[in-house]
Amino acid sequence: MEVRARAPGKIILSGEHAVVHGSTAVAASIDLYTYVSLRFPTESENDGTLKLQLKDMALEFSWPIGRIKLALPGLGSPLCSTPTSCSPESIKSIATLVEEQNVPEAKTGLASGMSAFLWLYTSIHGYKPATVVVTSELPLGSGLGSSAALCVSLSAALLALSDFVSLDLSHQGWLMFGESELELVNKWAFEGEKIIHGRPSGIDNTVSTYGNMIKFKSGSLTRIKSNMPLKMLITNTKVGRNTKALVAGVSERTVRHPDAMGAVFNAVDSISKELSTIIQSPAPNDLSITEKEEKIEELMEMNQGLLQCMGVSHASIETVLRTTLKYKLTSKLTGAGGGGCVLTLLPTLLSRTVIDKVIAELESYGFHCLTAGIGGNGLEICFDGSS
Amino acid sequence: MEVRARAPGKIILSGEHAVVHGSTAVAASIDLYTYVSLRFPTESENDGTLKLQLKDMALEFSWPIGRIKLALPGLGSPLCSTPTSCSPESIKSIATLVEEQNVPEAKTGLASGMSAFLWLYTSIHGYKPATVVVTSELPLGSGLGSSAALCVSLSAALLALSDFVSLDLSHQGWLMFGESELELVNKWAFEGEKIIHGRPSGIDNTVSTYGNMIKFKSGSLTRIKSNMPLKMLITNTKVGRNTKALVAGVSERTVRHPDAMGAVFNAVDSISKELSTIIQSPAPNDLSITEKEEKIEELMEMNQGLLQCMGVSHASIETVLRTTLKYKLTSKLTGAGGGGCVLTLLPTLLSRTVIDKVIAELESYGFHCLTAGIGGNGLEICFDGSS
Repeated sequence: MEVRARAPGKIILSGEHAVVHGSTAVAASIDLYTYVSLRFPTESENDGTLKLQLKDMALEFSWPIGRIKLALPGLGSPLCSTPTSCSPESIKSIATLVEEQNVPEAKTGLASGMSAFLWLYTSIHGYKPATVVVTSELPLGSGLGSSAALCVSLSAALLALSDFVSLDLSHQGWLMFGESELELVNKWAFEGEKIIHGRPSGIDNTVSTYGNMIKFKSGSLTRIKSNMPLKMLITNTKVGRNTKALVAGVSERTVRHPDAMGAVFNAVDSISKELSTIIQSPAPNDLSITEKEEKIEELMEMNQGLLQCMGVSHASIETVLRTTLKYKLTSKLTGAGGGGCVLTLLPTLLSRTVIDKVIAELESYGFHCLTAGIGGNGLEICFDGSS
Repeated sequence: MEVRARAPGKIILSGEHAVVHGSTAVAASIDLYTYVSLRFPTESENDGTLKLQLKDMALEFSWPIGRIKLALPGLGSPLCSTPTSCSPESIKSIATLVEEQNVPEAKTGLASGMSAFLWLYTSIHGYKPATVVVTSELPLGSGLGSSAALCVSLSAALLALSDFVSLDLSHQGWLMFGESELELVNKWAFEGEKIIHGRPSGIDNTVSTYGNMIKFKSGSLTRIKSNMPLKMLITNTKVGRNTKALVAGVSERTVRHPDAMGAVFNAVDSISKELSTIIQSPAPNDLSITEKEEKIEELMEMNQGLLQCMGVSHASIETVLRTTLKYKLTSKLTGAGGGGCVLTLLPTLLSRTVIDKVIAELESYGFHCLTAGIGGNGLEICFDGSS
């Protein structure tokens, strides 16, 4: 029996940084996925190990079940319906399990991802030998929610083959979980995210689980349904960011200029609200797709100006803005800024030729480009080789 | 008897565009001047004409006094203490006088400047032959207040040789007018500005007359006194702007997004207020010059982001920002945007070598650079060859 799960990455459409200061932000799923397959060995295959294959990096790790039992005792009868946090002691034990493997140091975040894997696996399936294979279309550590997509797809695959979830195994192709299963996946994924990020907001795993879009403000999340197709060019500047320092920089600026920055955050709040209204408005209404796109472009341009006002832009981001502007396309940074990824709206009527030209020019600067549909499905699973 | 007057140009330090929507803006004089000299001919020199020499353009115009009398009757006994507006009929007559000269069409604004000259001259001195020579360090039509500097220096030179103003003719070097004379000059200059611009705000002529800085909000002007040296690099992108279209664009965006743009204007208002507080704060206070400069730089960066949010930046402006950023210098557009001029703060401790490098790089893009002290003296006059 083999199950595959896939979960999407995310982008922040509006409101990054300002959300920390009480403004509304909007996040959306992108149709770029992390895939996790889970297979329990047949009796003849069983060598008593838990295997993790990271296909994109051509890495394979393997832990003898006995070694895991020693490091993490007391997980013999896991209760998968009750997501639990990894205790500080378990985190230490898991860190030891990871250190015993040959982890390339250059791969940032790899060790913490492996830790999340070990916690989720043992919490849901205890000491059962298995092979887990991970592949992803998402660049790691670039703000597109790759860790959340891993935690969500992993949790889903694990739960799909647990006693808790019963599914139609004969279904062909990708299948969606029901609401209660999604809720459980989201909770487990959040526990995984906590191991990777410390204090995640829960936005990334929620978007990855449910797909579509999410409006969030002061810690409360509202799922919203897009009523228009939306395509973005995502340019990864590959400039590494220090998210904590960027967030701290905005806070310090806010202390120095409370009135001005307060007004800036209010402006961002209005932009996020407007954006979600436009995206949700019924398809055949008084605004055509092109008019909606133009409104979204204007709001993106405004949001980018406000992010520059907060001081989180970067020369690489400006290069993307300038390059796309030459083709009359609008861009804004997404996520923490200071490098990272930049969004460029690709209007429905834009020709493939222009898109190819923009990408070629951006990649000539050493950037990496992806195109993605925005606001699509969240988590999906399938059995055996049906997809 | 010859008199020379000089009046400075201006920059907008903060609040352009937002001021139209009720925010505070701050303007300052720059130590780049327009010079006007006025000389009445001796009896032997008198050929019965009014001559205007524009030295920088190597242009000379000459009107027979009889021709002026015919076109503009009723100005025989001018009342220079009462500035009067040019009536629509007089504007037409003056336009005819200008058209009779050989005015190069390519020189934008030249005809309207000549009209202002004819109105101010005849209103203050009637039908008296004279020679007026104009030279300027200010580029024309680039938002640095060249027309106001012309109107102010011209009005001052004219009034200095009128019966209304009595001055110490033996004074050596540049001399300042008293308050009541400055007020009169400012009013006359405003009448000249109306001929050139239609409905000027009065900011340019006020800054040029009084020098230093001015805070303005909802049509009311407050003179403020700078307490720190401030030097700016002014980069003229030479990209022509359509100020009216840019102002209209911001207004349209405000209609589309009233809440967001309202918050943006509030942010600009706070920035202008903070800026004027820093600039006015006593010299030996708790903030060193470098700390003050850093605060001003941060406010400039924020204001620039907000201007980008309003949609009035331009690729040429972004090029200046990017170039100066490489040298860790902060820039913002000044005036209408869409091209025009960009300010870059030159910190007190910045070496001349760096300044020269930045200028060389900016000029390699075809831009023209000027350096200017900010907030210096306004109108000054001197007699004969004493300066």
